[in-house]
Amino acid sequence: MPKAIVTLLSDFGMQDTFVGQIKAVILSACPDASLVDLTHSIPPQSILTGAIHLRAAWQWFPAGTIHVAVVDPGVGTSRRAIGIRSRDHVFLGPDNGLFGGILGDDPPEQAVQLIHSPSGEPGVSRTFHGRDVFARAAGRLASGSSLDDVGSALDPGDVLKLRIPEPEVSETLISGEVLVVDHYGNAVTNIPASALGDRSHQWSVSCGRFSVDRLSSTYADVEEGAPLAAISSMDTVELGVRDGSAAVRYDLSQGMEVHLQRNNDRDHDHVPTQSGEG
Amino acid sequence: MPKAIVTLLSDFGMQDTFVGQIKAVILSACPDASLVDLTHSIPPQSILTGAIHLRAAWQWFPAGTIHVAVVDPGVGTSRRAIGIRSRDHVFLGPDNGLFGGILGDDPPEQAVQLIHSPSGEPGVSRTFHGRDVFARAAGRLASGSSLDDVGSALDPGDVLKLRIPEPEVSETLISGEVLVVDHYGNAVTNIPASALGDRSHQWSVSCGRFSVDRLSSTYADVEEGAPLAAISSMDTVELGVRDGSAAVRYDLSQGMEVHLQRNNDRDHDHVPTQSGEG
Amino acid sequence: MPKAIVTLLSDFGMQDTFVGQIKAVILSACPDASLVDLTHSIPPQSILTGAIHLRAAWQWFPAGTIHVAVVDPGVGTSRRAIGIRSRDHVFLGPDNGLFGGILGDDPPEQAVQLIHSPSGEPGVSRTFHGRDVFARAAGRLASGSSLDDVGSALDPGDVLKLRIPEPEVSETLISGEVLVVDHYGNAVTNIPASALGDRSHQWSVSCGRFSVDRLSSTYADVEEGAPLAAISSMDTVELGVRDGSAAVRYDLSQGMEVHLQRNNDRDHDHVPTQSGEG
Repeated sequence: MPKAIVTLLSDFGMQDTFVGQIKAVILSACPDASLVDLTHSIPPQSILTGAIHLRAAWQWFPAGTIHVAVVDPGVGTSRRAIGIRSRDHVFLGPDNGLFGGILGDDPPEQAVQLIHSPSGEPGVSRTFHGRDVFARAAGRLASGSSLDDVGSALDPGDVLKLRIPEPEVSETLISGEVLVVDHYGNAVTNIPASALGDRSHQWSVSCGRFSVDRLSSTYADVEEGAPLAAISSMDTVELGVRDGSAAVRYDLSQGMEVHLQRNNDRDHDHVPTQSGEG
Repeated sequence: MPKAIVTLLSDFGMQDTFVGQIKAVILSACPDASLVDLTHSIPPQSILTGAIHLRAAWQWFPAGTIHVAVVDPGVGTSRRAIGIRSRDHVFLGPDNGLFGGILGDDPPEQAVQLIHSPSGEPGVSRTFHGRDVFARAAGRLASGSSLDDVGSALDPGDVLKLRIPEPEVSETLISGEVLVVDHYGNAVTNIPASALGDRSHQWSVSCGRFSVDRLSSTYADVEEGAPLAAISSMDTVELGVRDGSAAVRYDLSQGMEVHLQRNNDRDHDHVPTQSGEG
Repeated sequence: MPKAIVTLLSDFGMQDTFVGQIKAVILSACPDASLVDLTHSIPPQSILTGAIHLRAAWQWFPAGTIHVAVVDPGVGTSRRAIGIRSRDHVFLGPDNGLFGGILGDDPPEQAVQLIHSPSGEPGVSRTFHGRDVFARAAGRLASGSSLDDVGSALDPGDVLKLRIPEPEVSETLISGEVLVVDHYGNAVTNIPASALGDRSHQWSVSCGRFSVDRLSSTYADVEEGAPLAAISSMDTVELGVRDGSAAVRYDLSQGMEVHLQRNNDRDHDHVPTQSGEG
């Protein structure tokens, strides 16, 4: 069996030992597992932010990777603990919509409800299923068990999916929103590069007080401290400031509307032939 | 030999490369070791917080795990560098009380004083024994050396133990304190779930301005933004706010007193039969 | 082949999944690689701070380690992506000076320009070469490829080197500066312990409002809350406060000048014989 890779995404933060305890349970079952932190800085209880970050990261891992995602405001209630298979990856977490980003419009190929003792029974806390339910299942899967071994079949269509907002796109206008503000203070939007067409530079971009009249290829295209819009690592439009924080400078935050308007071709693509003649 | 697991707990933070340097030294000796960060966010020099977090985490790892714990205000002085064995786990760190939480009332089964060149000699800094003393010993242990190989025998009863505060418990009153405030702003206390007896809901809880008249099973038991007390992942009482920070809302911090009072059974368990008849 | 170790240093922070995506790409190519985070908290775009931290950490790893360092304000421009070999370690990153600390005055033993599709082409973003260029090369190297396999030869003398400031040293005066402020608020300087000579205690130290009249051996040499200068884990002079933050107390920051003056031997080494006789 190839070495199992298990990724972890949560809102647990790094100051306590929550993540360490999860890793302990996984390694107890599968000492050879390779554990990768995606992020533990999801804002507490923000299922949407978790869904966005999971969607951005999962696809870079090889087929067979097990992803444990825990943003779980309903922990200890009757919300289901699930495992799903989608495009040869396995995902474990609460059934609260968190997998909406990776699934999109499609149901998963397989879904199970994880079998575990009731919350509050010895060995299963009411407040930390990351350790007591999801890590245990991940450890078993990493050791070679199948989803069928760790759960009972569930209708794949029943899995909850939080919808990540999608932009409205026309030939000349695109309306989207800020999905996340990243570490640098860049505002990453939900507007895909593919919506911009061939002449991707010819759009002006605005969001609150932020405004630029074209897209840039790289951050170095503008002067230090100047605003710019470029294509993010998620392959969507992002709003930034060269060597600065756009979020701080322009008060950008998750959910703000972003508008793109296609510029008149003549104004931007060609030097007007008359201008030198006037 | 099964793959060695080495955990790391410290107050080194994540902004410098201190932790990376420790891992470098361990992997130089044992490239196959599996390294797990418990936390590096212990408040600088807070031996008590380190002892509490170590106690919460170690037990989830398999027997044979090596735990390196470094909260070390006396680094470079004559304080001893030790290795101890307790319940089939090995712990390395300064002899300053840090292992008081995992040991409780018992001495370790074995204790050694780590052998190393004097601080300030070439190869051993005066300020970073995490790298120059503890990581080296961890690397040797991970490669198969025994505690006897890396240190000289010490009377197990001589190991310093910082006492983690314990609650006072009676049938109707429990007095404890806040041990740590976690990432979510929950105040985790030292009052064990076992002290609450069978009818665990029937206690009112107060701490400074925080007050609730019963324990909840899960965070979802109360309205969004409401205070609650529940059982933490450490299996103790914790004070929280649903979808918020109790620490911020109620100014809760480490060391504050927490009082539990058993409610009158009639008031809370049964609907008073007279009430509808009055 | 021994297990490959790959270290990661960047200004990506830990809140997004940038680092997780890089690890995904490396593990996809080499599932057995051992990945070690040096730090991802380099201040955004601070090549100097990256160069300083890389210099502090690389040498603790075994020969053959692959170091991926990404502080890359010019990502997506024509700045080169390079791989170099120096003292049996391999370094991958942008050719922007970041390797100046580890190289010092010497050119690398070998240098290559990494071969990759142009930025903006499918599969290579313009903003995240950490994932799309450097992680891919690291994965191939970790799987056994050589630098020649992943790049085309470059004149080693052409590699850009940011110069880390060096102190001016005389018998009685040393002038240096603060290189980094660490997690504890200690100001680590560029003044090497070796510049202090045998009688290392006999120097007074000043930096802005910070001033002490001698070097201490350990933090415990002074009273709680008192300032001190000692030898850092980088083997240079550092300015600290026992159980406190020198940076906060004395407003110390990167780049501030630090002055050491050799004290008169008689004043500090011996108790003046007359003093008791006056």
